[in-house]
Amino acid sequence: MTKKRVAIIGAGPSGLAQLRAFQSAAKNGEDIPDIVCFEKQGEWGGLWNYTWRTGLDENGEPVHCSMYRYLWSNGPKEGLEFADYSFEEHFGKQIASYPPRAVLMDYIEGRVKKANVRDWIRFNTAVRWVEYDDTTQKFTVTVHDHDKDSTYKQEFDHVICASGHFSTPNVPFYEGFDTFNGRVLHAHDFRDAREFTDKDILILGASYSAEDIGSQCWKYGCKSVTSSYRTAPMGFKWPENWEEKPALVRVDGNTAYFSDGSTKNVDAIILCTGYKHYFNFLPDDLRLRTANRLAAADLYKGVVYVHNPRMFYLGMQDQWFTFNMFDAQAWWVRDAIMGKIEIPTDKQVLLADVAEREAREEESDDVKYAIKYQGDYVKELIEETDYPTFDVDGACQAFYEWKGHKADNIMTFRNNSYKSVITGTMAPVHHTPWKDALDDTLEVYLQN
Amino acid sequence: MTKKRVAIIGAGPSGLAQLRAFQSAAKNGEDIPDIVCFEKQGEWGGLWNYTWRTGLDENGEPVHCSMYRYLWSNGPKEGLEFADYSFEEHFGKQIASYPPRAVLMDYIEGRVKKANVRDWIRFNTAVRWVEYDDTTQKFTVTVHDHDKDSTYKQEFDHVICASGHFSTPNVPFYEGFDTFNGRVLHAHDFRDAREFTDKDILILGASYSAEDIGSQCWKYGCKSVTSSYRTAPMGFKWPENWEEKPALVRVDGNTAYFSDGSTKNVDAIILCTGYKHYFNFLPDDLRLRTANRLAAADLYKGVVYVHNPRMFYLGMQDQWFTFNMFDAQAWWVRDAIMGKIEIPTDKQVLLADVAEREAREEESDDVKYAIKYQGDYVKELIEETDYPTFDVDGACQAFYEWKGHKADNIMTFRNNSYKSVITGTMAPVHHTPWKDALDDTLEVYLQN
Repeated sequence: MTKKRVAIIGAGPSGLAQLRAFQSAAKNGEDIPDIVCFEKQGEWGGLWNYTWRTGLDENGEPVHCSMYRYLWSNGPKEGLEFADYSFEEHFGKQIASYPPRAVLMDYIEGRVKKANVRDWIRFNTAVRWVEYDDTTQKFTVTVHDHDKDSTYKQEFDHVICASGHFSTPNVPFYEGFDTFNGRVLHAHDFRDAREFTDKDILILGASYSAEDIGSQCWKYGCKSVTSSYRTAPMGFKWPENWEEKPALVRVDGNTAYFSDGSTKNVDAIILCTGYKHYFNFLPDDLRLRTANRLAAADLYKGVVYVHNPRMFYLGMQDQWFTFNMFDAQAWWVRDAIMGKIEIPTDKQVLLADVAEREAREEESDDVKYAIKYQGDYVKELIEETDYPTFDVDGACQAFYEWKGHKADNIMTFRNNSYKSVITGTMAPVHHTPWKDALDDTLEVYLQN
Repeated sequence: MTKKRVAIIGAGPSGLAQLRAFQSAAKNGEDIPDIVCFEKQGEWGGLWNYTWRTGLDENGEPVHCSMYRYLWSNGPKEGLEFADYSFEEHFGKQIASYPPRAVLMDYIEGRVKKANVRDWIRFNTAVRWVEYDDTTQKFTVTVHDHDKDSTYKQEFDHVICASGHFSTPNVPFYEGFDTFNGRVLHAHDFRDAREFTDKDILILGASYSAEDIGSQCWKYGCKSVTSSYRTAPMGFKWPENWEEKPALVRVDGNTAYFSDGSTKNVDAIILCTGYKHYFNFLPDDLRLRTANRLAAADLYKGVVYVHNPRMFYLGMQDQWFTFNMFDAQAWWVRDAIMGKIEIPTDKQVLLADVAEREAREEESDDVKYAIKYQGDYVKELIEETDYPTFDVDGACQAFYEWKGHKADNIMTFRNNSYKSVITGTMAPVHHTPWKDALDDTLEVYLQN
């Protein structure tokens, strides 16, 4: 019997979790499928693979990275720790709770280096198109290998889409953007806050990007931050030079007009207006269409595409949990592909599962409810696989505390510490408060 | 007998020329093929369709536009005038010789509005993949209709690729770009020179983008321009605050280091480092691979893809001639598809044609030689079709004079006027010197 062939699209946190899941089974002596992981970038890490580039990359592909210099985790690392690879195992000691990007990238890499899965990845290889043939029950994946500047096709029994959903910006137009005398950019293209030192910045949006990019600009000496919300203000205790305004109405020259009649002259406009689930390589019958929510549309168990259960998606939910949730999903998908978990053949059962998750998500707007909802989802998947059990409720507890620390002071919450739910060790207090830590290299961060 | 079906990819100057060519034949009572033009953007005009957006557009597609606010033609309009639609016909009078973008866009649009070809275009429709089947001798074109968020396929007898080659930036890395404390951008993402008012700008490159973007920044009040060349300086008589430097070696913080040992502190780096011929929708057997040169590789008569003569490319050459050359190509391709011009069936003949063009291009490095070379190419194509004959040598003459005017003074060359080779009318002197004309709207430009 020939082995099944599995394509994984993307070698970011989700794709790497999938590689690690298969490698873990192989290490346990199981007979795993043939694995090919197609990665558009020249390196693994997905969003965490920082680049100074914006727009199109060196291969002409849309830049995947939405991260910026000086980015620190905006949630405690205790909420995302791998159950099979602790921070202490990686760094040889416990580290502070809000690591900068380079530290988390090092951690993500550490596990997959140890697992030795790099050979499964075809780098600089963009997936151009995927098709499914009902007769042969195979997927044909067409790719462009940029190293050879050559395209080719391969057949697979399963496709696991792990290409992320924080790379294609949602960019609204407001009157006057086309004649604004400064830079208008989306958060996706934000790279170095020092570009905005001494500038008056307008930020559109009221979610994580708005809060964090505004804070970065504040930390690196912008003159003022004006942030504009459509629904509700973020409501944090902002520094003196940060003002929240209601909806932007229009821009004229360098003047922004808001719905309360107030105005502000600004030098740059940063659109923190979210991202789209976007798959330019998928036809209608395979393409996920979902809002950014906890119960993603059309995904049984949050991972199986209900319209073609041979196709899987990882990490397509809105996220409180990240790396550990991707692990839970990857282990589950592995077992489904390897026949250890059975996917119901009746589509109605799959749809009912999705509907139940949607209804349950919609029962409450409360943040704690949402965190617990996703924690319960992680538990549900883990219980069906051999992924190491961990104290998910403890991770939820870290998130609850984090929310409280942010409410206390948005510019100091990253100075707090939490207890690892994997090793039980308390994180040290970081040696320098976040607002004063201008050098956030790995070497400096680890000096505790 | 069923009609031939022709797909045109792109509704910019080249694609629109192709639509006009077919419409012109239809108007003469000829039986033309079924035409479908796929356009990624929501409007026609290609590069000339200005947008404030950079990176990815509202549909998640790479932004096509590489133009910027305040862009004026960098060559005389007398070198690009349509032989079948003069500036005087469009504007009702003769206009000055270096129109701003909006004026040229209006002119391009005027002809195709009159020709009534808009219904042939499917807007917001990105071509995802094209394949050719040797057995059926048909192309299958797979597209994504963003208005319906839906993908579909259609078959065609011919594909004409008119997607341009000034939209995918060539972006080199230099040491220190990843830690530069300001914006590093490619010319493709340059939009409003006022972003750089009072700033020290570093420009990499020594071709048209470098010269024009530097001039824009100068015109709109940047503090200084430093431009860095690899091969040879541009050598114009620059203003006092513009300095040419040899190759950039590296950047450290905000300091740029050059190969002559000199340094300069800069606030922003603009990469005027050219574009790639890039077709993310084409497999190896259909994809043009060429340098940006007058004799493009693998194109018989500059338009027929030698490896599959049912596939055509428009406007893939480096360009002195533009709109009128695209016309010459479009009329020729139309007649080849309609059987009025015969493409040799012997591939060796096609290859010999390409080789002859390459050899002839390489005979001289002289600019006048190159202009005449491309003028002769335009003449060659026109002579084989019913495109209106015009004084190509006269257009060459305008280019020669333009070169002289630039050498005289790079900041005043746009104040000169030339004679139309279509109507014989001399262009008026513009009412305001280019450097003082800060309002370059169509309404203001036409006040002569």
